[in-house]
Amino acid sequence: MSIANIASFLKEAQDITILTHISPDGDALGSSFALCAALEDMGKCAKVVLPEPLPAYFSFMDWQPTLYTADVATQTVVALDCGDSKRLGTLETLIDQAETVVMLDHHKAGTPFGDLRFVSPASSATGEIIFDLLAALDVPLTPEIASALYVAISTDTGGFRYSNTTPRTHQIIAKLLELPFDAARINRFLYDCVPYSKLKLTALALDALTFFENGRIGVIAVSLDMLRQSGAVPEDMDGLTDYTRIAQGVEIGILLKEKGPDEVKISLRSNEYADVSAIATSFLGGGHVRASGCVIHAPLAQAKEQMGAAAAKILKG
Amino acid sequence: MSIANIASFLKEAQDITILTHISPDGDALGSSFALCAALEDMGKCAKVVLPEPLPAYFSFMDWQPTLYTADVATQTVVALDCGDSKRLGTLETLIDQAETVVMLDHHKAGTPFGDLRFVSPASSATGEIIFDLLAALDVPLTPEIASALYVAISTDTGGFRYSNTTPRTHQIIAKLLELPFDAARINRFLYDCVPYSKLKLTALALDALTFFENGRIGVIAVSLDMLRQSGAVPEDMDGLTDYTRIAQGVEIGILLKEKGPDEVKISLRSNEYADVSAIATSFLGGGHVRASGCVIHAPLAQAKEQMGAAAAKILKG
Repeated sequence: MSIANIASFLKEAQDITILTHISPDGDALGSSFALCAALEDMGKCAKVVLPEPLPAYFSFMDWQPTLYTADVATQTVVALDCGDSKRLGTLETLIDQAETVVMLDHHKAGTPFGDLRFVSPASSATGEIIFDLLAALDVPLTPEIASALYVAISTDTGGFRYSNTTPRTHQIIAKLLELPFDAARINRFLYDCVPYSKLKLTALALDALTFFENGRIGVIAVSLDMLRQSGAVPEDMDGLTDYTRIAQGVEIGILLKEKGPDEVKISLRSNEYADVSAIATSFLGGGHVRASGCVIHAPLAQAKEQMGAAAAKILKG
Repeated sequence: MSIANIASFLKEAQDITILTHISPDGDALGSSFALCAALEDMGKCAKVVLPEPLPAYFSFMDWQPTLYTADVATQTVVALDCGDSKRLGTLETLIDQAETVVMLDHHKAGTPFGDLRFVSPASSATGEIIFDLLAALDVPLTPEIASALYVAISTDTGGFRYSNTTPRTHQIIAKLLELPFDAARINRFLYDCVPYSKLKLTALALDALTFFENGRIGVIAVSLDMLRQSGAVPEDMDGLTDYTRIAQGVEIGILLKEKGPDEVKISLRSNEYADVSAIATSFLGGGHVRASGCVIHAPLAQAKEQMGAAAAKILKG
């Protein structure tokens, strides 16, 4: 199915419900609200339905979701940035109720669903697909649409830093920046605005950063006590992964998150060459060469030694 | 003077020495080495002369400067990213010795110098000017040139996040990314690779972060003792400025750097509306509305109270 076909279909649709995956990120939300604003500009009835209120992290954007209730109307559903309908969570039932389901996604892996499908793994973000769809719909960009697409594409490319960033990504951003919206303000809220409790947790984590194998393995073990001390929430732990691999000379970064007395969740990262998925799978986890994870049922200190030893073995080949 | 005129002149020149400002940043170095590589590709004798070896921070790039000696040949000099010849430091003498001096810069303020001048304050980085100059010279981009210009433009725009980033900036980056070089690796070295001592200093600084005026003023006082404890170098203090204004709710960020028993260097930042240059000038310093600085001759703790009080006064209008 081409973008042009999907545009033709949406031109005729009147009542459009936009859905995205649970724990929505910047691409999921930015793509959804950009498309919603464009469809409204075309005179259609459109809404973004979320199972929960907008994550606080995105409260700087003026986005108004419709909260899910069992009787939400769903003539046409567009599911965005979601490679598998299971990742819609409670919203999956709306897929069954809808007359027509459109699926738009950029993830490589997944189980495509819906009546009209467009999956483009070459796109850095679903936001890139929405940009092309709006062009096919002939709907002009507005500051509201451009800023939402900017959030979508910037967040899914790590601020245009990851290897999924292409010439096309920058061409699209160039077009978006021609609209009058404050991209520097968006960047400040996305990347330079952190709750104080998370900064406190970061200080504790950096203080706890240790190394194995002459500094080639960086390890941070975050205890529940560190969470209590800083007042941070468990999700604040996730952002610490990058600090395990940021010190000069580190190839493998290991973040250990204490979940209970005998449960430790582990995130593994590598910078240049080490295959950390091999470590994760040996502990019944999974993931990719550069990013993987697993769970160990052991006390935090013991888990740290186990993971350090496993990573050292990988480095020694 | 237009870029086309400067290109015409350089087409005829044979021996070209490229200079840039002291304490060269990514734009200064990236622009210099991109131009040097292009001129060499054109069959000319070109070199980048620095007064000191390449800063270690840029050692991941394969850049080979010529170290300054009194007898370095200077038929034609191109001075880049330098608004005032005084900022060339010891290299300023080469300006007087050269037959022809070309000045290329993007800074708003300055004292233009040289025989052929092109100053473009609308450009986010001198790297953008070099991109246009290479087009005017008809020299094809190579991975070596593209990666150097990527470093130049990325660093001067804060990774495309600052308000100086324009549609043109992203159009140029899109063209550069068409060349086969590893931009994700460059981004990792630029933004995700930090000496361990600096991470230790960051942990101490985040731990020392305090607030005035209900969290609207963030203050970090870095003592010489914290430097000793972490093993960091004084320049590592500079990167801490952003942490003073990163906590949610902060409008004014103040970084105090202890230089001696009665000397404190102060950096002031604001996020949205406060005029921190008014604070700096009241202490005989200077700068801009969003970024300024001054020096206070007082012990660190006393300087902190003074600056906090001055910032509170500004917030109260």
